[in-house]
Amino acid sequence: MDQTILLLNKQSCLDQLTKLGINYILHNYEPTPVFEHHIKIQMSDDTTYIKNLLYVDNKSNYYLILANHTTKIGKLFLKNLGLQLGNIKLSEEEQITEELKSSKDNFSLFALFNDSNNLIKNIIIDEELTKFKRVLLHLIENTNIVVITFDDLQNKFLKTLNKNYSILQLRDITDQQTLEQQNKQTLAITVKKSDFTEWYQQVIRKGELIEYYDVSGCYILRPWAYFIWEQIQRYFDDLIRTEDVENAYFPMLLPSKYLIKKQDHVQVQKAEIAWVTKQGQNILNEPLAIRPTSEIIMYPAFAKWIQSYRDLPLKVNQWTNIIRWELQQPTPFIKTREFLWQEGHTAHQRREEAIKQVYTILDFYEQVYNELLAVPVIKGIKTESEKFLGADFTTTIETIIPQNGRGLQCATSHHLGQNFSRMFDINFEDDKKQKIYVWQTSWGLTTRSIGAMIMFHSDNKGLILPPRIAKYQIIIIPIIQKDIDQILLINRCEQIKQILIKLKLRVYIDSRDNYSIGWKFNKWEQKGVPIRLEIGPEEFKNNQVTVISRFNNKKYQITIQELNQLNQILDNIHNSMLKKAEIELNQKIKNADNWNEFMLQFNQRNTILTKWCERTQCEQQIKTKSGQESKEKDLKFDGLIQPSKGASALCMPLKQDQIIEGQKCFHCNQQAKKYVLWGRSY
Amino acid sequence: MDQTILLLNKQSCLDQLTKLGINYILHNYEPTPVFEHHIKIQMSDDTTYIKNLLYVDNKSNYYLILANHTTKIGKLFLKNLGLQLGNIKLSEEEQITEELKSSKDNFSLFALFNDSNNLIKNIIIDEELTKFKRVLLHLIENTNIVVITFDDLQNKFLKTLNKNYSILQLRDITDQQTLEQQNKQTLAITVKKSDFTEWYQQVIRKGELIEYYDVSGCYILRPWAYFIWEQIQRYFDDLIRTEDVENAYFPMLLPSKYLIKKQDHVQVQKAEIAWVTKQGQNILNEPLAIRPTSEIIMYPAFAKWIQSYRDLPLKVNQWTNIIRWELQQPTPFIKTREFLWQEGHTAHQRREEAIKQVYTILDFYEQVYNELLAVPVIKGIKTESEKFLGADFTTTIETIIPQNGRGLQCATSHHLGQNFSRMFDINFEDDKKQKIYVWQTSWGLTTRSIGAMIMFHSDNKGLILPPRIAKYQIIIIPIIQKDIDQILLINRCEQIKQILIKLKLRVYIDSRDNYSIGWKFNKWEQKGVPIRLEIGPEEFKNNQVTVISRFNNKKYQITIQELNQLNQILDNIHNSMLKKAEIELNQKIKNADNWNEFMLQFNQRNTILTKWCERTQCEQQIKTKSGQESKEKDLKFDGLIQPSKGASALCMPLKQDQIIEGQKCFHCNQQAKKYVLWGRSY
Repeated sequence: MDQTILLLNKQSCLDQLTKLGINYILHNYEPTPVFEHHIKIQMSDDTTYIKNLLYVDNKSNYYLILANHTTKIGKLFLKNLGLQLGNIKLSEEEQITEELKSSKDNFSLFALFNDSNNLIKNIIIDEELTKFKRVLLHLIENTNIVVITFDDLQNKFLKTLNKNYSILQLRDITDQQTLEQQNKQTLAITVKKSDFTEWYQQVIRKGELIEYYDVSGCYILRPWAYFIWEQIQRYFDDLIRTEDVENAYFPMLLPSKYLIKKQDHVQVQKAEIAWVTKQGQNILNEPLAIRPTSEIIMYPAFAKWIQSYRDLPLKVNQWTNIIRWELQQPTPFIKTREFLWQEGHTAHQRREEAIKQVYTILDFYEQVYNELLAVPVIKGIKTESEKFLGADFTTTIETIIPQNGRGLQCATSHHLGQNFSRMFDINFEDDKKQKIYVWQTSWGLTTRSIGAMIMFHSDNKGLILPPRIAKYQIIIIPIIQKDIDQILLINRCEQIKQILIKLKLRVYIDSRDNYSIGWKFNKWEQKGVPIRLEIGPEEFKNNQVTVISRFNNKKYQITIQELNQLNQILDNIHNSMLKKAEIELNQKIKNADNWNEFMLQFNQRNTILTKWCERTQCEQQIKTKSGQESKEKDLKFDGLIQPSKGASALCMPLKQDQIIEGQKCFHCNQQAKKYVLWGRSY
Repeated sequence: MDQTILLLNKQSCLDQLTKLGINYILHNYEPTPVFEHHIKIQMSDDTTYIKNLLYVDNKSNYYLILANHTTKIGKLFLKNLGLQLGNIKLSEEEQITEELKSSKDNFSLFALFNDSNNLIKNIIIDEELTKFKRVLLHLIENTNIVVITFDDLQNKFLKTLNKNYSILQLRDITDQQTLEQQNKQTLAITVKKSDFTEWYQQVIRKGELIEYYDVSGCYILRPWAYFIWEQIQRYFDDLIRTEDVENAYFPMLLPSKYLIKKQDHVQVQKAEIAWVTKQGQNILNEPLAIRPTSEIIMYPAFAKWIQSYRDLPLKVNQWTNIIRWELQQPTPFIKTREFLWQEGHTAHQRREEAIKQVYTILDFYEQVYNELLAVPVIKGIKTESEKFLGADFTTTIETIIPQNGRGLQCATSHHLGQNFSRMFDINFEDDKKQKIYVWQTSWGLTTRSIGAMIMFHSDNKGLILPPRIAKYQIIIIPIIQKDIDQILLINRCEQIKQILIKLKLRVYIDSRDNYSIGWKFNKWEQKGVPIRLEIGPEEFKNNQVTVISRFNNKKYQITIQELNQLNQILDNIHNSMLKKAEIELNQKIKNADNWNEFMLQFNQRNTILTKWCERTQCEQQIKTKSGQESKEKDLKFDGLIQPSKGASALCMPLKQDQIIEGQKCFHCNQQAKKYVLWGRSY
């Protein structure tokens, strides 16, 4: 009993770990309702969170199940344990409290030390857990957790307690019937959008956009996602062609000597660079970096190509993959170690031309977000400390994710001035035979754009794709019933499809007879197809179709003659989606005139527009202080918790009121110069 | 004088190098007329060949210039040396022969040892040479060369001789006038197509397809080349869409444990794999390979996605970059360390479906080559030893480069059988609940295709692009003369352009007034634009244009009303190009019934179609023997010469006569089974 009392104490738990020779990292939390959310958000790919469930059957046998937090424990599995369904129940709280000093909600493994009566004889470990290196465990109180290795959990922790355990697959074992059930089950998204991180992960996987992959931070873009990227490519290519930008391809590998020479101007943190050092078994004479961006790769060639003012402007763009070894927790599309992007680079004779180019591209980026992805953005300029290193200034489009109020940098367009041209000796002779360094721009847009679209538009049921980027804009589902000839119905669907193809719409008929109507509805809703056309006996008879809009669930009939309205209907859907998103975005922008107002909004997950003095020192103080005073914590790849990043200056919006003499910075009270939008950024 | 005599001897030159502490590699050649060709072909990127030129001015000062073999020594440069133009001449052979025992043609540096009278006071080293690690030097006779480091040349060789030298940029310093001259000069290709390797390099650089880059085997694809790749992408995407193939993107990095596990099935030589081992300063726990191909990356995901027969067929394709660390000498487009490609992967329920897929794709590849690139190909099957490791069989399209008779593998389509599906556990339940492994295919087409097109179609003046892949199909050049209003003429060009755009033609007007007509003609000929339209005073008056076909130089007038014939004219050009190429290809295929006939044709740089026993052992013997008996030599990346690769089995053509009982293998005289096409391959 002494031991029991001891173990109710945080320090005694830790002492126990030390005694067992287990290394641990300890995290302390303020008790907040979003605790679990935090953990989920910030877990690295090789670390997971264990959900402990205690069951008791009607013969008073206890079963402790250590499950991965994402595992759904199936009925069939419990049945296979030999337990009668219906007889299973979560053990009653009182008994647990009394005997083991832990709650059933999330049973603490440390409570096992109190099991002197050996109540718990059966421990079952979820096979899923074997895929992880490290696990998070609660101490007795749920405000403290430790990270230990899964290996130590098995071989030191459980072994010492002399508890036997089995490793089992907790998901239901599939047979034809349960497969179907499981299809239905896994199709449904199990959490609401308010549980944002988990929701996002389910939406992208069940919507068949992403498959996870064995290299942390790298993901498979499935056809449903890659199609979106192809639409963005085509749209943006058409835009930049009007500016005479030409596509090209530059090598991926970058000699280290280039980087060393130009290190002052390498924007990407050196820690984020992946290095190729070996070819087969041979060490390379010179390590090669994988491009994190291509300024240094391209500009020596620019210096060769540009000799005279007649060679200007030079405008090239490339669509490539990029590696940046992110040290923060990855999020598919949003923050990944490999990603796809375009990078454009131009060189001009005159400064004004380059500046004009910068803003033209920024407008193009806004068009991609508004017109294709139905995502609203704020155009602005980065502060000195947030700009691209080596740029004279950086323009940006930013958006704000309504669920968590985080700022998301959507694309940037840099005016590089003559900084790079001086470094790489890119110059030309003008008509007066003067040697002049060119004026340059560079600009990039990534697959992150797809993530922004998903976060804005999808709902509890799954994806909602804006019509212009959906691989299928319309899904036709024949409602086959007994009182109608199946072949006639399918033929009608085919006729309708042909009409729609002539309208240049992207259509698919799901006439598979081995899936139920309900399954199909779920499936295509989850994949976000903008419009479902249903054709059943009633519609067939009346030469009609039933139209269901995924976006707002509106359901109505139109005749076959009216099918040509569908282009307009899809455009209306796009516009409504954009409008709704604009409202949501604007609700996340608050004003503040002083620090208290600022922190109040910041802690309520808003972004804040304030007057600011434009001093970098002041910006740094705001960032540090808001991080310290914030209630949120961040977790790094290695499982270490660190203070929240605090508020960054997202941008100085282009559209803003004039600041007048006497108006003060909200933070330092010096003369204000600009309005700045602050927020926690991705 | 003793020393002089000594140095005329090969061994004494080598002794001298040894005495100076200089490491060298010695190469002996049979004196052949193609000697220089050999050297140029096979030089690695960090090795170069020095051209030594001896000049004397009218004050009898000698100037020895050590130039990179590609450098053109400009007049302005010589002027800047303080030498009167016109007074410069190559020093007379007699004098040189007498004093230094070397010829002026390619002055041997070893002859400097004979310069006891210190005739040569001025030595100038081309700045270009400083970019190379190693240089090739003649001994006295031009049948022997040594490779030494550039460093040794400077610091041991020249230093010992007490010769001072300066390193200078030998290209003309640009001023407005010489720039123009130089533009004209560098525009012209300086060698004929018969000097194939040098010609190819000039064509791709001066045609603005390729820019060289600092990582060996990696090249910049300039917009003029990348446009061709985009056309191939679009064309092929349209074809595979008819087969319901979907585009996707899989990560580039591959955990080493995958490779170790599947090493038996990794086609790409392990020596060719580039390894990422570091991130910033940190060593990665597990090295990551850059994809040399993506079977191993994709198939674990296939295993997840395929559960039931309803998930089949699965067909995905991706357009990506690839790294294979070639150890042979690189050739832009043809053999490079990084290249672009598409790789398609399909999984099927039944073997026959997969086989059908393999051949459908092979037909698509043939279409790309014939219909876009105007390059004829031979469809065939690879022998057992040449097939993709892990495939049941490999189909291929091959072509033969007319100039050197080398076989070029253009694209391959593999039937993988169930080899990979068993390895990666990709199976499904059929309707009888049987677990069945899927049948798979994979297939790839690379940027090599562009190289094949260039080699076939270009000529002594530069590129000739087949019309369907040319960024500009038509270049309009206004012939501005004094007797016509310039604005009227340009307007007329613009009108014509608009007519052509309506015909969906790609057109550009070169109305720049700071380049001469002649310069423009050269420029666009070199870039291979299929049709040039000239509009001068005469054409203006008669409402005509003059049409010049790049392909056959045909020149004729058509009226503005007849402009709509241009689509047909371009199609005719395409067809003529393909026809001409087919004839050239067929001329390179010879028959042989025995070894002597075979080697005769092989040494005349032909490919040879023979009856064959289909035994791998016989194939290996043919390869080895033909290499040994061949007159050609190959040079590796490290500068070492090795015997020629010998004849490979390019393919067993699909179209071939039946072999009957009693017909013998040309080599081993056993019963023949198939006709095989043999040749030296790229």
